[in-house]
Amino acid sequence: MNQPSASPSPRLSPEELLGRVRIVLSHPSHPGNIGAAARAMKTMGLSRLCLVNPKLFPDAEATARAAGADDILEQAVICSSLDEALAGTIFAVALSARHRNLGPTPLPAREAAPEILTLAAQGDVALVFGNETKGLSNEEVQRCRRTVFIAANPEYTSLNLGAAVQLLCYELRLAVFGGTPPVQTKAVAFSSPLATSDDVERFYSHLERVMVATGFLDPQQPKRLMPKLRRLFVRAELERDEINILRGILDAVEKKPPG
Amino acid sequence: MNQPSASPSPRLSPEELLGRVRIVLSHPSHPGNIGAAARAMKTMGLSRLCLVNPKLFPDAEATARAAGADDILEQAVICSSLDEALAGTIFAVALSARHRNLGPTPLPAREAAPEILTLAAQGDVALVFGNETKGLSNEEVQRCRRTVFIAANPEYTSLNLGAAVQLLCYELRLAVFGGTPPVQTKAVAFSSPLATSDDVERFYSHLERVMVATGFLDPQQPKRLMPKLRRLFVRAELERDEINILRGILDAVEKKPPG
Repeated sequence: MNQPSASPSPRLSPEELLGRVRIVLSHPSHPGNIGAAARAMKTMGLSRLCLVNPKLFPDAEATARAAGADDILEQAVICSSLDEALAGTIFAVALSARHRNLGPTPLPAREAAPEILTLAAQGDVALVFGNETKGLSNEEVQRCRRTVFIAANPEYTSLNLGAAVQLLCYELRLAVFGGTPPVQTKAVAFSSPLATSDDVERFYSHLERVMVATGFLDPQQPKRLMPKLRRLFVRAELERDEINILRGILDAVEKKPPG
Repeated sequence: MNQPSASPSPRLSPEELLGRVRIVLSHPSHPGNIGAAARAMKTMGLSRLCLVNPKLFPDAEATARAAGADDILEQAVICSSLDEALAGTIFAVALSARHRNLGPTPLPAREAAPEILTLAAQGDVALVFGNETKGLSNEEVQRCRRTVFIAANPEYTSLNLGAAVQLLCYELRLAVFGGTPPVQTKAVAFSSPLATSDDVERFYSHLERVMVATGFLDPQQPKRLMPKLRRLFVRAELERDEINILRGILDAVEKKPPG
């Protein structure tokens, strides 16, 4: 939906870094929670809200709960798929209370915040929140490269959607303003910029095509092959150059039969 | 309203310490916020809610927003004055976005949390939140011995009451459990055992063979292709099952030319 932001700059202000973080609400049921999320974002200096197939929006309840943050609602982008909401991002983070073993070890919000900001210095990032009742689907979590959770009472982990957005935005704000000392994360050690979400999705499509063509993947009985491969590659946090290599291999396989 | 809790005990569990923290809402206007506060408390392991002259309570909106935390609402204590709500406490903390120079320097919530818990080891403590529109009066703030604020966007500090309760309870929970809750380590989250070094080496050899056969890798001019691919896969920390999938793909590519 957006153009990718400019390349890394050491001069981004804390406000600019927060401005690169999208809050994506997938299939929100209650417009009140959309308003609460907008208000939560604005109190912490975030502004970019994406709604994937909201049940009701715009809605008076959303506007009421947004209080003075109705500008965030007005600028909200409505998307018809998570892919559309993630277009142009270099990294997406799924919020999930459940541990699902779908990728890298889930991080508590406080530990994730500095990493998210480090990545925001390189481009747009997204925090993806699921539906109030069902949360995110496994497929949605696998579109993201990191899972984050909020440390909650194990006997009652049922955070309200707006409250979860509030906590994450709060952690980002404290982290960007030095509430937590800067942490050297894996991202800054990368030799090449991270691949965009779009690049990664194109790689998966290409890989799937080759697997089908070679007979390794039966489209009628795909089993869990693609989810397993996604889980592997999401852990690797693919870089742009690596995507180029992997797709080069796939191209070569398609063009010239070996042996 | 309550009897003072027992004297200091070094043996209080984190849960018991959180159980000594009262959340006091002074003159809340919107029953939905009372419900949201109850839910926020329960997600973080707090349970004692006091309401000073609530405008509407009990109320269906409060119950609806409390979701599964209606037990907190049922046990909520209704008081007719702040003094009554603070009876039996050894320390009270006022939440305020405004700096009013009424006592000790206001502390940000993150710094205040450990102090509040240290005091909770000695007796009951209260966190006092004001009315949604007017906040706390100066008189109410002066009933408290400490003012705490939530670091927010200076251009829009208007946190929702339930969101403010959520953030404070979250800070208390993280502080009482030592900053970071226990995190599942990557190794135990694996669904399959890690691949052995030998397995991984055989995979690299196989991959190299296919790349040469397809013409993607020129053995006379290998450049840094294999080191780059090793770097990618080493980050993924390949599992045994994943090696099997990857080698299955390579086998399929070798046996049956695509296209």
